Amino acid sequence: MQELSIGIDIGGTNTEIGLVDRKGNIWAENKISTSDYPEVDDYVTALTSAINESLKAVTENYVLKGIGIGAPNGNYYTGSIEFAPNLHWKGVVPLVKLLNQNFHVNMALTNDANAAAMGEMIYGAAKGMKDFIVITLGTGLGSGIVVDGKVVYGHDGFAGEVGHTIYDPQGRLCGCGRKGCLETYASATGMKKTVIEFLSKTSEKSLLSSIPEKDLNSKIIYEAAVKGDKIALEAFDYTARILGLKLADSVAYTSPEAIFLFGGLALAGDYILKPTKKYMEENILQIFKNKVKLEISGLMGKNAAVLGAAALIWDEKSE
Amino acid sequence: MQELSIGIDIGGTNTEIGLVDRKGNIWAENKISTSDYPEVDDYVTALTSAINESLKAVTENYVLKGIGIGAPNGNYYTGSIEFAPNLHWKGVVPLVKLLNQNFHVNMALTNDANAAAMGEMIYGAAKGMKDFIVITLGTGLGSGIVVDGKVVYGHDGFAGEVGHTIYDPQGRLCGCGRKGCLETYASATGMKKTVIEFLSKTSEKSLLSSIPEKDLNSKIIYEAAVKGDKIALEAFDYTARILGLKLADSVAYTSPEAIFLFGGLALAGDYILKPTKKYMEENILQIFKNKVKLEISGLMGKNAAVLGAAALIWDEKSE
Repeated sequence: MQELSIGIDIGGTNTEIGLVDRKGNIWAENKISTSDYPEVDDYVTALTSAINESLKAVTENYVLKGIGIGAPNGNYYTGSIEFAPNLHWKGVVPLVKLLNQNFHVNMALTNDANAAAMGEMIYGAAKGMKDFIVITLGTGLGSGIVVDGKVVYGHDGFAGEVGHTIYDPQGRLCGCGRKGCLETYASATGMKKTVIEFLSKTSEKSLLSSIPEKDLNSKIIYEAAVKGDKIALEAFDYTARILGLKLADSVAYTSPEAIFLFGGLALAGDYILKPTKKYMEENILQIFKNKVKLEISGLMGKNAAVLGAAALIWDEKSE
Repeated sequence: MQELSIGIDIGGTNTEIGLVDRKGNIWAENKISTSDYPEVDDYVTALTSAINESLKAVTENYVLKGIGIGAPNGNYYTGSIEFAPNLHWKGVVPLVKLLNQNFHVNMALTNDANAAAMGEMIYGAAKGMKDFIVITLGTGLGSGIVVDGKVVYGHDGFAGEVGHTIYDPQGRLCGCGRKGCLETYASATGMKKTVIEFLSKTSEKSLLSSIPEKDLNSKIIYEAAVKGDKIALEAFDYTARILGLKLADSVAYTSPEAIFLFGGLALAGDYILKPTKKYMEENILQIFKNKVKLEISGLMGKNAAVLGAAALIWDEKSE
């Protein structure tokens, strides 16, 4: 019989739900607001209804294998969302426990980047790989590290914070309160900051000069780069230099077969990939040279967050 | 019946052999020169004789469970020593294959730092831990990373090169050909360089001023620090600042329960431990603050390299 799992992607604004098979086909989809529910109990009630709607939408016979959830600050070990800065619910939210009162199936919860790594392994470009890293370049820089076929969760469930390794201890202020974290440079937000810095220091004409700061984003910078804009191209080079340097460190840690870039900034394709690869190779230890693939995620353009969350259920640990 | 495994520690000068039980008791020991054998076949012949002597030295009944080997650039996957700069034998030396012609038992080979991590887990301070890191501070900086109870070998067997993560891309020249690798600062050799730099920049009196450069080592610097020598104390602080910063990165990667320091520089005890802990905590991501133990290895003073090599055989993968 057809086996399906539910993937739930919890974002600060919306929650997306998908009913997915082992091949990554989506059998039903649904969506609720996250931010409309300041009380977690109300959210769980709404989420339960939305899940039930999705389940009813499938008319064929199937077995529901479980529910996988990707959420900011999701802790795999505890099944809780812990101190997520961009969600209403403060402190520790035992989401798996709450949802289990309504659905008596296997459940797994982790953070967005770890879910993306699971998705890459089950449905994406990391199929058959046992050692790889997924780097999500969005508002921040998230990372999911896979070693020997398993996501690295570490002692407390919070491993894989490559975005918060330090590039420059005297550098840009990070949302985490420290200075110079990688994500303050290598992320959509970081690149926007870089462009603003560059523009403030030059009198050179740029397609980006006329864009109001609030409207500037990695897509606009990418489009300017495609048109040959010097500031935009320099911003890609600067971002890639820092990302490449720190990815050389990542390789020294876990010696991955490949590193995949995902998220808004990864939409720039070769504009981010090629220089990052160059700088990574320049800074990589000899024994790793020209051995580690750097590629765009195989899930770009798909509903990767939902697929990744659903993939948690196909992980052997959850079965 | 008593189960024993053989631990072999191959260094540039000597090779040490120990017959070890699961509790870490050493039943027989032996030693041969490494550097006397420019031909690997001659070395294997000598090593075989030395192992056989050790085996005969035990008069009780026992079962030999296997042979574990720690060697520079030892590759766990291939059982080979690959391009080790400090050994006579060039290129790829298939040591496990060669030795297996004489001993038909389980065999495992890895690098020194990974063997130290196995030793820590089986016999040392990491007993019962599933996620920890061992940092060996000797001539260089070696590291063994354990995730979910297993040493991280990565895609090609060379994971765990924390000593070659980059602290400063414009920094000190490293033996690996790059600049600013952590081990050029945080190692016995790195600390010696720091003292020489500090002495060249000051007219202040120091107990270390009169020591010829060639005689300067981490033990002498430690002894000067104990006597309150300012340059020595500053060298510990400088070393610890860089090590602490990069260990904060290490925590962000694998979220270990503990980090253990081992090797010559770790003999300085609190002189290296306390400032490193301070700087690690200053630079660590909020969610990890005051959660990660930083301790001196539980194998200091023991024949840790031999115990660690022997411990490879008790690893579930090798059984």
